[in-house]
Amino acid sequence: MLKIVLLRHGESVWNQENRFTGWTDVDLSAEGVRQARQAGALLRQHGYRFDVAYTSVLKRAIKTLDLALEEMDQLWIPVQKSWRLNERFYGALQGLNKAETIARYGAEQVRKWRRDPLEHPPALAPDDPRYPGHDARYAHLTARELPLTENLTETLARVLPYWTETIVPALRRRQQVLVCAHGNSLRALVQYIDHLTDAEVTQLDIPTGSPLVIELDDDLNRLQQYYLT
Amino acid sequence: MLKIVLLRHGESVWNQENRFTGWTDVDLSAEGVRQARQAGALLRQHGYRFDVAYTSVLKRAIKTLDLALEEMDQLWIPVQKSWRLNERFYGALQGLNKAETIARYGAEQVRKWRRDPLEHPPALAPDDPRYPGHDARYAHLTARELPLTENLTETLARVLPYWTETIVPALRRRQQVLVCAHGNSLRALVQYIDHLTDAEVTQLDIPTGSPLVIELDDDLNRLQQYYLT
Repeated sequence: MLKIVLLRHGESVWNQENRFTGWTDVDLSAEGVRQARQAGALLRQHGYRFDVAYTSVLKRAIKTLDLALEEMDQLWIPVQKSWRLNERFYGALQGLNKAETIARYGAEQVRKWRRDPLEHPPALAPDDPRYPGHDARYAHLTARELPLTENLTETLARVLPYWTETIVPALRRRQQVLVCAHGNSLRALVQYIDHLTDAEVTQLDIPTGSPLVIELDDDLNRLQQYYLT
Repeated sequence: MLKIVLLRHGESVWNQENRFTGWTDVDLSAEGVRQARQAGALLRQHGYRFDVAYTSVLKRAIKTLDLALEEMDQLWIPVQKSWRLNERFYGALQGLNKAETIARYGAEQVRKWRRDPLEHPPALAPDDPRYPGHDARYAHLTARELPLTENLTETLARVLPYWTETIVPALRRRQQVLVCAHGNSLRALVQYIDHLTDAEVTQLDIPTGSPLVIELDDDLNRLQQYYLT
Protein backbone atom coordinates (compact mmCIF):
# COMPACT_ATOMS: atom_id res chain seq x y z
CA MET A 1 0.00 0.00 0.00
CA LEU A 2 1.28 3.47 -0.97
CA LYS A 3 0.38 6.52 1.05
CA ILE A 4 0.70 10.23 0.32
CA VAL A 5 -0.20 13.28 2.37
CA LEU A 6 -1.49 16.40 0.60
CA LEU A 7 -1.52 19.71 2.45
CA ARG A 8 -3.07 22.95 1.22
CA HIS A 9 -1.17 26.01 2.46
CA GLY A 10 -2.53 28.01 5.39
CA GLU A 11 -4.67 31.08 4.86
CA SER A 12 -2.92 33.86 2.93
CA VAL A 13 -3.34 37.60 3.34
CA TRP A 14 -5.28 37.64 0.06
CA ASN A 15 -7.62 34.85 1.22
CA GLN A 16 -8.39 37.30 4.04
CA GLU A 17 -8.90 40.19 1.62
CA ASN A 18 -10.97 37.94 -0.66
CA ARG A 19 -8.81 38.61 -3.73
CA PHE A 20 -7.95 36.28 -6.64
CA THR A 21 -4.37 35.16 -5.98
CA GLY A 22 -3.21 32.60 -8.57
CA TRP A 23 0.54 32.93 -9.04
CA THR A 24 0.77 36.20 -7.06
CA ASP A 25 3.34 35.50 -4.36
CA VAL A 26 1.40 36.64 -1.29
CA ASP A 27 2.41 35.76 2.25
CA LEU A 28 0.59 33.73 4.90
CA SER A 29 -1.67 35.58 7.30
CA ALA A 30 -1.12 35.16 11.05
CA GLU A 31 -3.99 32.65 10.95
CA GLY A 32 -2.24 30.86 8.06
CA VAL A 33 0.93 30.55 10.15
CA ARG A 34 -1.13 29.09 12.98
CA GLN A 35 -2.81 26.61 10.59
CA ALA A 36 0.57 25.51 9.22
CA ARG A 37 1.96 24.81 12.70
CA GLN A 38 -1.25 23.02 13.62
CA ALA A 39 -0.97 20.80 10.53
CA GLY A 40 2.58 19.87 11.56
CA ALA A 41 1.47 19.15 15.12
CA LEU A 42 -1.34 16.88 13.80
CA LEU A 43 1.08 14.97 11.58
CA ARG A 44 3.51 14.58 14.50
CA GLN A 45 0.76 13.38 16.85
CA HIS A 46 -0.33 10.78 14.29
CA GLY A 47 3.25 9.54 14.01
CA TYR A 48 3.92 10.66 10.43
CA ARG A 49 7.56 10.83 9.29
CA PHE A 50 8.50 11.90 5.79
CA ASP A 51 11.43 11.08 3.53
CA VAL A 52 10.84 13.89 1.05
CA ALA A 53 8.50 16.84 0.49
CA TYR A 54 7.37 18.66 -2.62
CA THR A 55 6.04 22.18 -2.85
CA SER A 56 5.46 25.05 -5.27
CA VAL A 57 7.65 28.12 -5.82
CA LEU A 58 5.13 30.33 -3.99
CA LYS A 59 5.99 31.42 -0.45
CA ARG A 60 2.60 30.64 1.09
CA ALA A 61 3.15 26.94 0.29
CA ILE A 62 6.91 26.95 1.04
CA LYS A 63 6.37 28.60 4.43
CA THR A 64 3.47 26.31 5.29
CA LEU A 65 5.71 23.34 4.55
CA ASP A 66 8.63 24.77 6.55
CA LEU A 67 6.43 25.55 9.55
CA ALA A 68 4.85 22.09 9.48
CA LEU A 69 8.23 20.37 9.13
CA GLU A 70 9.63 22.45 11.98
CA GLU A 71 6.72 21.35 14.15
CA MET A 72 7.55 17.72 13.24
CA ASP A 73 11.29 18.30 13.84
CA GLN A 74 11.86 17.24 10.22
CA LEU A 75 13.29 20.42 8.70
CA TRP A 76 16.27 18.35 7.53
CA ILE A 77 14.41 16.27 4.89
CA PRO A 78 14.94 17.09 1.20
CA VAL A 79 12.42 19.58 -0.19
CA GLN A 80 11.88 20.04 -3.93
CA LYS A 81 10.09 23.12 -5.26
CA SER A 82 8.42 23.24 -8.66
CA TRP A 83 6.31 25.78 -10.53
CA ARG A 84 4.22 22.78 -11.64
CA LEU A 85 2.67 22.63 -8.15
CA ASN A 86 1.75 26.34 -8.24
CA GLU A 87 -1.83 27.48 -7.77
CA ARG A 88 -4.03 27.63 -10.85
CA PHE A 89 -3.03 30.70 -12.91
CA TYR A 90 -5.96 33.09 -12.65
CA GLY A 91 -5.15 35.32 -15.66
CA ALA A 92 -6.35 38.91 -15.58
CA LEU A 93 -8.39 38.23 -12.43
CA GLN A 94 -5.21 37.99 -10.31
CA GLY A 95 -5.27 40.75 -7.71
CA LEU A 96 -8.95 41.61 -8.17
CA ASN A 97 -11.31 41.58 -5.23
CA LYS A 98 -13.89 38.82 -5.60
CA ALA A 99 -16.81 41.02 -4.60
CA GLU A 100 -15.83 43.68 -7.15
CA THR A 101 -15.41 41.02 -9.80
CA ILE A 102 -18.91 39.74 -9.07
CA ALA A 103 -20.27 43.30 -9.33
CA ARG A 104 -18.62 43.70 -12.73
CA TYR A 105 -19.13 40.27 -14.33
CA GLY A 106 -22.05 38.82 -12.38
CA ALA A 107 -22.13 36.07 -9.75
CA GLU A 108 -22.85 33.29 -12.25
CA GLN A 109 -19.82 34.09 -14.44
CA VAL A 110 -17.54 34.34 -11.41
CA ARG A 111 -18.88 31.04 -10.06
CA LYS A 112 -18.07 29.44 -13.40
CA TRP A 113 -14.54 30.88 -13.44
CA ARG A 114 -13.96 29.53 -9.96
CA ARG A 115 -15.65 26.15 -10.28
CA ASP A 116 -16.15 25.02 -13.86
CA PRO A 117 -13.05 22.99 -14.78
CA LEU A 118 -13.32 24.07 -18.44
CA GLU A 119 -13.88 27.80 -17.91
CA HIS A 120 -11.01 30.26 -18.58
CA PRO A 121 -10.69 33.53 -16.67
CA PRO A 122 -9.83 36.50 -18.95
CA ALA A 123 -6.25 36.07 -20.26
CA LEU A 124 -3.36 38.26 -19.18
CA ALA A 125 -1.41 40.15 -21.85
CA PRO A 126 2.33 39.30 -21.96
CA ASP A 127 3.16 42.99 -21.39
CA ASP A 128 1.13 43.00 -18.17
CA PRO A 129 3.39 43.42 -15.11
CA ARG A 130 1.65 40.34 -13.68
CA TYR A 131 2.88 38.12 -16.57
CA PRO A 132 5.15 35.46 -14.99
CA GLY A 133 7.66 35.82 -17.84
CA HIS A 134 8.87 38.91 -15.96
CA ASP A 135 9.73 36.93 -12.83
CA ALA A 136 13.22 35.40 -12.40
CA ARG A 137 11.79 32.22 -10.85
CA TYR A 138 10.19 31.33 -14.21
CA ALA A 139 13.18 32.32 -16.39
CA HIS A 140 13.84 28.68 -17.33
CA LEU A 141 10.33 28.17 -18.78
CA THR A 142 9.38 28.46 -22.43
CA ALA A 143 6.74 30.95 -23.55
CA ARG A 144 4.53 27.94 -24.25
CA GLU A 145 4.83 26.78 -20.64
CA LEU A 146 4.09 30.23 -19.19
CA PRO A 147 0.32 30.60 -18.79
CA LEU A 148 -1.79 33.62 -19.73
CA THR A 149 -4.85 31.99 -18.13
CA GLU A 150 -5.71 28.48 -16.97
CA ASN A 151 -8.80 26.41 -16.47
CA LEU A 152 -8.56 23.53 -13.99
CA THR A 153 -7.97 21.03 -16.78
CA GLU A 154 -4.91 23.00 -17.89
CA THR A 155 -3.69 23.23 -14.30
CA LEU A 156 -3.90 19.43 -14.16
CA ALA A 157 -2.04 19.19 -17.47
CA ARG A 158 1.02 20.95 -16.01
CA VAL A 159 0.80 19.29 -12.57
CA LEU A 160 0.61 15.83 -14.11
CA PRO A 161 4.18 15.52 -15.48
CA TYR A 162 5.48 16.31 -11.97
CA TRP A 163 3.17 13.73 -10.43
CA THR A 164 4.16 11.06 -12.95
CA GLU A 165 7.88 11.73 -13.24
CA THR A 166 8.80 12.90 -9.74
CA ILE A 167 6.21 12.08 -7.07
CA VAL A 168 5.08 8.62 -8.21
CA PRO A 169 8.67 7.31 -8.51
CA ALA A 170 9.27 8.42 -4.90
CA LEU A 171 6.12 6.56 -3.80
CA ARG A 172 7.28 3.48 -5.68
CA ARG A 173 10.60 3.65 -3.82
CA ARG A 174 8.39 3.31 -0.70
CA GLN A 175 9.28 6.83 0.42
CA GLN A 176 6.94 8.71 2.73
CA VAL A 177 5.84 11.74 0.70
CA LEU A 178 4.33 15.08 1.70
CA VAL A 179 3.02 17.50 -0.94
CA CYS A 180 2.31 21.05 0.19
CA ALA A 181 0.54 23.02 -2.52
CA HIS A 182 -2.58 25.00 -3.39
CA GLY A 183 -6.36 24.67 -3.48
CA ASN A 184 -6.55 24.13 -7.23
CA SER A 185 -3.28 22.30 -7.93
CA LEU A 186 -4.38 19.80 -5.26
CA ARG A 187 -7.97 19.64 -6.56
CA ALA A 188 -6.56 18.84 -10.00
CA LEU A 189 -4.37 16.12 -8.53
CA VAL A 190 -7.23 14.56 -6.57
CA GLN A 191 -9.44 14.70 -9.68
CA TYR A 192 -6.79 12.69 -11.53
CA ILE A 193 -6.07 10.19 -8.73
CA ASP A 194 -9.76 9.66 -8.04
CA HIS A 195 -11.01 9.67 -11.64
CA LEU A 196 -13.49 12.42 -10.77
CA THR A 197 -15.76 13.76 -13.49
CA ASP A 198 -15.83 17.49 -14.18
CA ALA A 199 -19.16 17.62 -12.34
CA GLU A 200 -17.67 15.89 -9.32
CA VAL A 201 -14.57 18.09 -9.10
CA THR A 202 -16.86 21.15 -9.10
CA GLN A 203 -18.03 19.99 -5.66
CA LEU A 204 -14.53 19.29 -4.34
CA ASP A 205 -13.05 21.75 -1.88
CA ILE A 206 -9.83 21.10 0.03
CA PRO A 207 -9.61 23.14 3.24
CA THR A 208 -6.46 25.10 4.16
CA GLY A 209 -4.02 23.49 6.60
CA SER A 210 -5.80 20.09 6.89
CA PRO A 211 -3.54 17.13 6.03
CA LEU A 212 -5.34 14.89 3.50
CA VAL A 213 -4.08 11.30 3.56
CA ILE A 214 -4.58 9.24 0.40
CA GLU A 215 -3.90 5.51 0.38
CA LEU A 216 -3.23 3.89 -3.01
CA ASP A 217 -2.72 0.35 -4.21
CA ASP A 218 0.34 -0.55 -6.26
CA ASP A 219 -1.50 0.40 -9.46
CA LEU A 220 -2.17 3.84 -7.94
CA ASN A 221 -5.89 3.20 -7.49
CA ARG A 222 -7.23 5.07 -4.52
CA LEU A 223 -8.16 2.83 -1.59
CA GLN A 224 -9.02 5.34 1.12
CA GLN A 225 -8.75 9.02 1.85
CA TYR A 226 -9.28 10.99 5.01
CA TYR A 227 -8.35 14.24 6.71
CA LEU A 228 -6.30 14.07 9.89
CA THR A 229 -8.09 15.58 12.86
CA MET B 1 35.40 35.84 -11.83
CA LEU B 2 33.48 33.43 -9.59
CA LYS B 3 31.84 34.61 -6.41
CA ILE B 4 30.43 32.73 -3.44
CA VAL B 5 28.77 33.93 -0.25
CA LEU B 6 29.34 32.01 2.99
CA LEU B 7 27.03 32.61 5.93
CA ARG B 8 27.46 31.23 9.44
CA HIS B 9 24.11 30.56 11.14
CA GLY B 10 22.80 33.04 13.70
CA GLU B 11 23.37 32.55 17.42
CA SER B 12 21.89 29.32 18.78
CA VAL B 13 20.41 28.72 22.22
CA TRP B 14 23.53 26.71 23.09
CA ASN B 15 25.86 29.53 21.98
CA GLN B 16 23.96 31.53 24.59
CA GLU B 17 24.36 28.78 27.20
CA ASN B 18 28.03 28.38 26.24
CA ARG B 19 27.71 24.64 25.53
CA PHE B 20 29.55 22.53 22.95
CA THR B 21 27.02 21.94 20.18
CA GLY B 22 28.56 20.00 17.28
CA TRP B 23 25.86 17.91 15.60
CA THR B 24 23.30 18.52 18.38
CA ASP B 25 20.27 19.96 16.60
CA VAL B 26 19.68 23.06 18.72
CA ASP B 27 17.48 25.93 17.64
CA LEU B 28 18.29 29.58 16.95
CA SER B 29 17.98 32.02 19.83
CA ALA B 30 15.81 35.13 19.37
CA GLU B 31 19.06 37.01 18.70
CA GLY B 32 20.00 34.35 16.13
CA VAL B 33 16.68 34.89 14.33
CA ARG B 34 17.39 38.63 14.28
CA GLN B 35 20.90 38.03 12.91
CA ALA B 36 19.54 35.77 10.16
CA ARG B 37 17.01 38.36 9.01
CA GLN B 38 19.68 41.06 9.20
CA ALA B 39 21.99 38.95 7.00
CA GLY B 40 19.20 38.63 4.41
CA ALA B 41 18.51 42.36 4.55
CA LEU B 42 22.22 43.12 3.98
CA LEU B 43 22.36 40.76 0.99
CA ARG B 44 19.22 42.35 -0.43
CA GLN B 45 20.55 45.89 0.07
CA HIS B 46 23.78 44.94 -1.73
CA GLY B 47 21.76 43.57 -4.66
CA TYR B 48 22.63 39.90 -4.21
CA ARG B 49 20.43 37.34 -6.00
CA PHE B 50 21.08 33.62 -5.74
CA ASP B 51 20.39 30.71 -8.07
CA VAL B 52 20.94 27.99 -5.49
CA ALA B 53 21.73 27.61 -1.78
CA TYR B 54 23.43 24.86 0.20
CA THR B 55 23.07 24.17 3.89
CA SER B 56 23.55 21.46 6.52
CA VAL B 57 20.90 19.14 7.99
CA LEU B 58 20.92 21.10 11.27
CA LYS B 59 18.00 23.43 11.95
CA ARG B 60 20.07 26.42 13.09
CA ALA B 61 21.61 26.60 9.60
CA ILE B 62 18.41 25.67 7.71
CA LYS B 63 16.37 28.30 9.57
CA THR B 64 19.07 30.96 9.15
CA LEU B 65 19.01 30.28 5.41
CA ASP B 66 15.21 30.32 5.23
CA LEU B 67 14.97 33.58 7.20
CA ALA B 68 17.67 35.23 5.05
CA LEU B 69 16.03 34.03 1.82
CA GLU B 70 12.64 35.25 3.02
CA GLU B 71 14.15 38.68 3.70
CA MET B 72 15.52 38.65 0.11
CA ASP B 73 12.18 37.41 -1.31
CA GLN B 74 14.06 34.39 -2.68
CA LEU B 75 12.43 31.53 -0.76
CA TRP B 76 11.69 29.91 -4.13
CA ILE B 77 15.29 29.07 -5.08
CA PRO B 78 16.45 25.43 -4.85
CA VAL B 79 18.01 24.54 -1.49
CA GLN B 80 20.14 21.44 -1.01
CA LYS B 81 20.88 20.10 2.48
CA SER B 82 23.83 17.87 3.26
CA TRP B 83 25.32 16.37 6.44
CA ARG B 84 28.71 17.22 4.90
CA LEU B 85 28.12 20.89 5.74
CA ASN B 86 27.30 20.09 9.38
CA GLU B 87 29.26 21.65 12.23
CA ARG B 88 32.43 19.88 13.34
CA PHE B 89 31.45 16.78 15.33
CA TYR B 90 32.52 17.51 18.91
CA GLY B 91 32.51 13.92 20.23
CA ALA B 92 31.87 13.40 23.93
CA LEU B 93 32.06 17.15 24.56
CA GLN B 94 28.68 17.71 22.83
CA GLY B 95 26.23 19.11 25.34
CA LEU B 96 28.87 19.99 27.96
CA ASN B 97 29.11 23.50 29.30
CA LYS B 98 32.38 25.12 28.23
CA ALA B 99 33.13 26.55 31.69
CA GLU B 100 32.62 23.13 33.32
CA THR B 101 34.79 21.50 30.67
CA ILE B 102 37.56 23.99 31.42
CA ALA B 103 37.20 23.27 35.14
CA ARG B 104 37.57 19.53 34.47
CA TYR B 105 40.20 19.43 31.71
CA GLY B 106 41.99 22.77 32.08
CA ALA B 107 41.84 25.87 29.91
CA GLU B 108 44.83 24.88 27.77
CA GLN B 109 43.36 21.50 26.79
CA VAL B 110 39.99 23.05 25.98
CA ARG B 111 41.67 25.77 23.91
CA LYS B 112 43.47 23.06 21.96
CA TRP B 113 40.26 21.10 21.38
CA ARG B 114 38.59 24.25 20.11
CA ARG B 115 41.41 25.71 18.07
CA ASP B 116 44.12 23.21 17.16
CA PRO B 117 43.14 21.70 13.79
CA LEU B 118 44.78 18.38 14.68
CA GLU B 119 43.37 17.94 18.18
CA HIS B 120 40.53 15.42 18.78
CA PRO B 121 37.94 15.92 21.51
CA PRO B 122 37.22 12.72 23.50
CA ALA B 123 35.42 10.23 21.23
CA LEU B 124 31.79 9.26 21.65
CA ALA B 125 30.91 5.58 22.13
CA PRO B 126 28.51 4.17 19.46
CA ASP B 127 26.07 3.19 22.24
CA ASP B 128 25.92 6.80 23.45
CA PRO B 129 22.47 8.33 22.80
CA ARG B 130 24.33 11.23 21.14
CA TYR B 131 25.80 8.92 18.46
CA PRO B 132 24.42 10.13 15.08
CA GLY B 133 23.87 6.54 13.96
CA HIS B 134 20.69 6.68 16.09
CA ASP B 135 19.27 9.60 14.11
CA ALA B 136 17.07 8.98 11.01
CA ARG B 137 18.67 11.85 9.12
CA TYR B 138 21.97 9.92 9.00
CA ALA B 139 20.44 6.52 8.21
CA HIS B 140 21.95 6.53 4.69
CA LEU B 141 25.54 6.92 6.00
CA THR B 142 28.01 4.10 6.55
CA ALA B 143 29.54 3.50 9.99
CA ARG B 144 32.81 4.74 8.51
CA GLU B 145 31.21 8.06 7.53
CA LEU B 146 29.57 8.57 10.93
CA PRO B 147 32.03 10.38 13.21
CA LEU B 148 32.81 9.55 16.84
CA THR B 149 34.96 12.69 17.10
CA GLU B 150 36.47 15.11 14.60
CA ASN B 151 39.39 17.46 14.44
CA LEU B 152 39.15 20.36 11.99
CA THR B 153 41.19 18.47 9.39
CA GLU B 154 38.65 15.64 9.46
CA THR B 155 35.80 18.14 9.21
CA LEU B 156 37.47 19.48 6.07
CA ALA B 157 37.88 15.95 4.73
CA ARG B 158 34.11 15.37 4.73
CA VAL B 159 33.19 18.91 3.61
CA LEU B 160 35.59 18.73 0.67
CA PRO B 161 33.73 16.15 -1.50
CA TYR B 162 30.64 18.36 -1.31
CA TRP B 163 32.65 21.43 -2.27
CA THR B 164 34.33 19.68 -5.19
CA GLU B 165 31.42 17.67 -6.54
CA THR B 166 28.44 19.91 -5.82
CA ILE B 167 29.33 23.53 -5.07
CA VAL B 168 32.22 24.08 -7.50
CA PRO B 169 30.23 22.71 -10.49
CA ALA B 170 27.45 25.21 -9.66
CA LEU B 171 30.03 28.04 -9.58
CA ARG B 172 31.43 26.87 -12.91
CA ARG B 173 27.91 27.01 -14.38
CA ARG B 174 28.08 30.72 -13.36
CA GLN B 175 25.38 30.23 -10.76
CA GLN B 176 25.15 32.64 -7.83
CA VAL B 177 25.75 30.44 -4.77
CA LEU B 178 24.97 30.92 -1.08
CA VAL B 179 26.29 28.47 1.52
CA CYS B 180 24.75 28.66 4.98
CA ALA B 181 26.64 26.49 7.46
CA HIS B 182 28.60 26.47 10.71
CA GLY B 183 31.63 28.08 12.36
CA ASN B 184 33.91 25.11 11.81
CA SER B 185 32.61 23.68 8.53
CA LEU B 186 33.08 27.19 7.08
CA ARG B 187 36.52 27.64 8.72
CA ALA B 188 37.57 24.34 7.14
CA LEU B 189 36.30 25.49 3.75
CA VAL B 190 38.10 28.86 4.00
CA GLN B 191 41.28 27.08 5.10
CA TYR B 192 41.09 25.00 1.93
CA ILE B 193 40.16 27.83 -0.45
CA ASP B 194 42.79 30.16 1.02
CA HIS B 195 45.58 27.59 1.51
CA LEU B 196 45.82 28.56 5.18
CA THR B 197 48.36 26.78 7.35
CA ASP B 198 47.20 25.07 10.55
CA ALA B 199 48.70 28.01 12.47
CA GLU B 200 46.75 30.50 10.36
CA VAL B 201 43.41 28.71 10.67
CA THR B 202 43.83 28.75 14.46
CA GLN B 203 43.44 32.53 14.26
CA LEU B 204 40.41 32.39 11.92
CA ASP B 205 37.01 33.13 13.39
CA ILE B 206 33.89 33.63 11.26
CA PRO B 207 31.22 35.66 13.07
CA THR B 208 27.56 34.52 13.17
CA GLY B 209 25.16 36.07 10.67
CA SER B 210 27.75 38.09 8.68
CA PRO B 211 27.77 37.30 4.95
CA LEU B 212 31.36 36.58 3.83
CA VAL B 213 31.88 37.19 0.11
CA ILE B 214 34.74 35.32 -1.57
CA GLU B 215 35.80 36.13 -5.13
CA LEU B 216 37.73 33.46 -7.01
CA ASP B 217 39.44 33.29 -10.37
CA ASP B 218 38.59 30.51 -12.82
CA ASP B 219 41.22 28.27 -11.22
CA LEU B 220 39.50 28.81 -7.86
CA ASN B 221 42.30 30.96 -6.47
CA ARG B 222 41.03 33.49 -4.00
CA LEU B 223 41.12 37.05 -5.31
CA GLN B 224 39.32 38.98 -2.58
CA GLN B 225 37.20 38.37 0.45
CA TYR B 226 35.14 40.71 2.60
CA TYR B 227 32.21 40.77 4.98
CA LEU B 228 29.12 42.69 3.94
CA THR B 229 28.30 45.52 6.32
